[in-house]
Amino acid sequence: MLKPQVMEQLKKIVGAENFATGAQELICYGYDATQMEFLPDCVVHPADANEVSQILKLANVEKFPVFPRGAGSGFTGGALPKGGGVVLVTTRMNKILRIDTDNLVAEVEPGVVTEQFQIEVEKLGLFYPPDPASLKFSTLGGNVAECAGGPRAVKYGVTKDFVMGLEVVVPTGEIIRTGGETVKGVVGYDLTKLLCGSEGTLGIITKIIFKLLPYPAAKKTMLTVFDSIDGAAQAVSTIIKGKIIPTTLEFMDHATLTCVDRRFNLGLPAEGRAVLLIEVDGDPDLIEKQAGAIHDLIQPLGLVQFRVAKNAAESEELWRVRRLVSPSLRDVNPDKFNEDIVVPRSKVPDVIRKIEVIQQRYDIPIVNFGHAGDGNIHVNIMIDKSQAGQEEKAHQAIKEVFQAALDLGGTMSGEHGVGLAKQPYIPLELSAEQIGVMQGIKRALDPNNILNPGKMFPA
Amino acid sequence: MLKPQVMEQLKKIVGAENFATGAQELICYGYDATQMEFLPDCVVHPADANEVSQILKLANVEKFPVFPRGAGSGFTGGALPKGGGVVLVTTRMNKILRIDTDNLVAEVEPGVVTEQFQIEVEKLGLFYPPDPASLKFSTLGGNVAECAGGPRAVKYGVTKDFVMGLEVVVPTGEIIRTGGETVKGVVGYDLTKLLCGSEGTLGIITKIIFKLLPYPAAKKTMLTVFDSIDGAAQAVSTIIKGKIIPTTLEFMDHATLTCVDRRFNLGLPAEGRAVLLIEVDGDPDLIEKQAGAIHDLIQPLGLVQFRVAKNAAESEELWRVRRLVSPSLRDVNPDKFNEDIVVPRSKVPDVIRKIEVIQQRYDIPIVNFGHAGDGNIHVNIMIDKSQAGQEEKAHQAIKEVFQAALDLGGTMSGEHGVGLAKQPYIPLELSAEQIGVMQGIKRALDPNNILNPGKMFPA
Ligand SMILES: Cc1cc2nc3c(=O)[nH]c(=O)nc-3n(C[C@H](O)[C@H](O)[C@H](O)COP(=O)(O)OP(=O)(O)OC[C@H]3O[C@@H](n4cnc5c(N)ncnc54)[C@H](O)[C@@H]3O)c2cc1C
Ligand SMILES: Cc1cc2nc3c(=O)[nH]c(=O)nc-3n(C[C@H](O)[C@H](O)[C@H](O)COP(=O)(O)OP(=O)(O)OC[C@H]3O[C@@H](n4cnc5c(N)ncnc54)[C@H](O)[C@@H]3O)c2cc1C
Repeated sequence: MLKPQVMEQLKKIVGAENFATGAQELICYGYDATQMEFLPDCVVHPADANEVSQILKLANVEKFPVFPRGAGSGFTGGALPKGGGVVLVTTRMNKILRIDTDNLVAEVEPGVVTEQFQIEVEKLGLFYPPDPASLKFSTLGGNVAECAGGPRAVKYGVTKDFVMGLEVVVPTGEIIRTGGETVKGVVGYDLTKLLCGSEGTLGIITKIIFKLLPYPAAKKTMLTVFDSIDGAAQAVSTIIKGKIIPTTLEFMDHATLTCVDRRFNLGLPAEGRAVLLIEVDGDPDLIEKQAGAIHDLIQPLGLVQFRVAKNAAESEELWRVRRLVSPSLRDVNPDKFNEDIVVPRSKVPDVIRKIEVIQQRYDIPIVNFGHAGDGNIHVNIMIDKSQAGQEEKAHQAIKEVFQAALDLGGTMSGEHGVGLAKQPYIPLELSAEQIGVMQGIKRALDPNNILNPGKMFPA
Repeated sequence: MLKPQVMEQLKKIVGAENFATGAQELICYGYDATQMEFLPDCVVHPADANEVSQILKLANVEKFPVFPRGAGSGFTGGALPKGGGVVLVTTRMNKILRIDTDNLVAEVEPGVVTEQFQIEVEKLGLFYPPDPASLKFSTLGGNVAECAGGPRAVKYGVTKDFVMGLEVVVPTGEIIRTGGETVKGVVGYDLTKLLCGSEGTLGIITKIIFKLLPYPAAKKTMLTVFDSIDGAAQAVSTIIKGKIIPTTLEFMDHATLTCVDRRFNLGLPAEGRAVLLIEVDGDPDLIEKQAGAIHDLIQPLGLVQFRVAKNAAESEELWRVRRLVSPSLRDVNPDKFNEDIVVPRSKVPDVIRKIEVIQQRYDIPIVNFGHAGDGNIHVNIMIDKSQAGQEEKAHQAIKEVFQAALDLGGTMSGEHGVGLAKQPYIPLELSAEQIGVMQGIKRALDPNNILNPGKMFPA
């Protein structure tokens, strides 16, 4: 528990209206998109880097933990105040500071909501590609801290690829700048990329400089259905080897299709075993040509349906298949563990086969879909927690799924991070020496272990 | 000086034929592309990570410094053994381990020469874009350690953007893997990017996993001449805003053109004040269209010549203008300081104007060319060292050039790094707090300050 006089000091730093200890607020800031919950001692809403700095300096004197939080949409409990302490919410720092249309650069505060930023840059004919499915509520700060990805990552990369510079309050309270506004820069270590994906353990991000692109002139959406997973997976490699890098290559397996079709009756062909939702963007003539080339490239691979959207409305209709996945899943079972393993692209069929075996062994439904172009598969383990023993079975199955991905040269997580949820599995992926180096960096930056303590590394 | 028995141990680790203390070899491994020279105590050529690990473990026990070195083509003295110690040359680790054409991934040892790697991947229809001008001799390990760039960075990015994973011997001698073979991965801190550009101060890279691309179907080269620097600079922004991201946008200022034309008589129009060498690549129809669009976009900006290469031979002819720059410079003065500042793209004319003022104030010729698409300008300060006072004047001028770039939101170096040469200027760019964080990371990884000590940070 924080001492009352420390609470008073915090209140003074942020102002009474931006400080809360009421039960309702403690509860509201104690959970995220995982099913975990921990209550903080208080919640602060600082206005800027200066206030954040004062809070962290106080934390180092009084030795209390601080948990940065954006929208709380994280999938791994990264923002949760396990053990109690101060939740520091960034949502008041929500200004788009500038959009520089000459240099294709924007500077924002961390609490800006992802979609809001996209809308503003698109008004100027520009493009911020990272598109996590949570974009309507996630913050850009949270996106940077988790290195969020999305369907467009195949062509454009993940959040990290668009972060040029940061303003960061390091755990000891100093305010530093990292990177800058130039596309290149090699003076000193790359602290910018180190902060990306560091899940709020190395610093609190208070400003972000993003790289932007011109908005693509046009796009074209295709829904393609294959009679086997191997066919769909081969299609991915074949298209890329055919010198076409699509914007998205979204994959849905048979279990996913069954869920969606059972509920929404989309009329997918009965012999369909896997779907790829493919989008290309760019010059209108070029994408027309690419759509034709894609058809010819994948035709021999067991293609049983190929639908090309003629306009934006039809494109929306094709995307509907993908969007309906989440709402359909709960029909299978009420509770879900949503993992996001990655394997080298060509290993997608292997990992799906391994998951099939795991599913049979544990007798739990597992539904797979995701970003096949990146080899990033969302593995949804569907259980009913009210039934005894199911949760343990799920944890066993998850461990085997992770191991399967790792055995194929992959990783446990492509987007969602470690937080609390994946912490116990970390030693499956990282060696003691790797963890040692990372913890050395954490200690160097955060000698009193103030910032998001107990996260990421094994306890 | 290393103790004789330590030398013996080193000889045992790498084998007598891979250990040298002869004067000739000490001299050969004591310089790089700067004009500095320092003699090591001995030179070792380890075969693999295991030998590198043994050397670093011994170094931690016996407390001697180790200086990793690739081809020694560095422009900032990063590989030089200032103060003496062991130079560790990576050139025996020169195998391309595999090129995976399904996942567009390659694994190499650090001593592979850049161009050699490009040739091998191109044989398979693949593409490794980073193209430092030193590619015929620089090593891939050196490229990663310096985060090398090149003309193609406008469209494709720098070396870092292609590094997916590393095998690294950390300064204390442990061998770790960072990153992996998947496009995405967010488990733990991004040590891969931290190592990129760390100039051999945080670890010795013993394997690299690179991302590859399909080789572009076609390319088109254009030589464009403008009647003002502003016109050329505006052309850069205008093309990119026109939704065309060229592969290269190389810039040469009037002083550069005069040098080249005086010596090689290329027939550039007399009213030309700046040249942009533009290349686009990709689909053959698209680039045809893009070449036309580029012409129309830049026509109003004071374009006085527009030459499009019709074939590979003509493209070579246009590139000749750029290639002849270096050999021409020495006509201006025998000695050169070659800096590589970066400013936001739109600030290129401003920085050139500021450099003009500096040049007049110090009365030293300064010749500017480089990668305008990235705002990365090579500033060549041409002096005659045999004339008293010229070197000091040059150093004063360099400092002002750096300050000009920084004042415009830029950086001192886009590609060449800090090493020894730019170390004194570091406090111009980085705050004490930033340096503190970086030195904290260095100490965490290298508690005995074994690896490339005395580099990068101010003494
Ligand atoms: C329905 C749904 C769909 C999703 N889809 C995707 C998807 O497609 N791709 C994807 O990558 N993720 C997805 N996510 C996960 C989540 O939305 C992302 O991780 C997002 O980036 C989190 O942003 P946030 O603002 O909600 O962060 P929070 O959940 O509040 O925090 C996440 C982590 O970031 C840290 N943090 C937050 N702000 C800062 C800051 N300013 N400085 C330092 N650290 C900070 C926190 O401490 C915590 O560790 C999804 C989540 C949901 C619920
Ligand atoms: C004519 C010429 C043109 C050039 N053009 C360009 C250009 O266009 N773009 C550009 O970016 N640079 C350019 N350079 C600079 C230089 O070639 C690059 O920095 C290159 O990456 C250095 O590679 P190298 O193998 O020679 O490294 P070295 O000079 O041997 O070493 C450079 C640094 O890397 C470290 N290092 C080397 N290998 C390893 C390893 N395996 N592990 C850890 N650290 C290591 C060294 O300690 C040192 O700090 C040019 C140089 C010359 C002489």
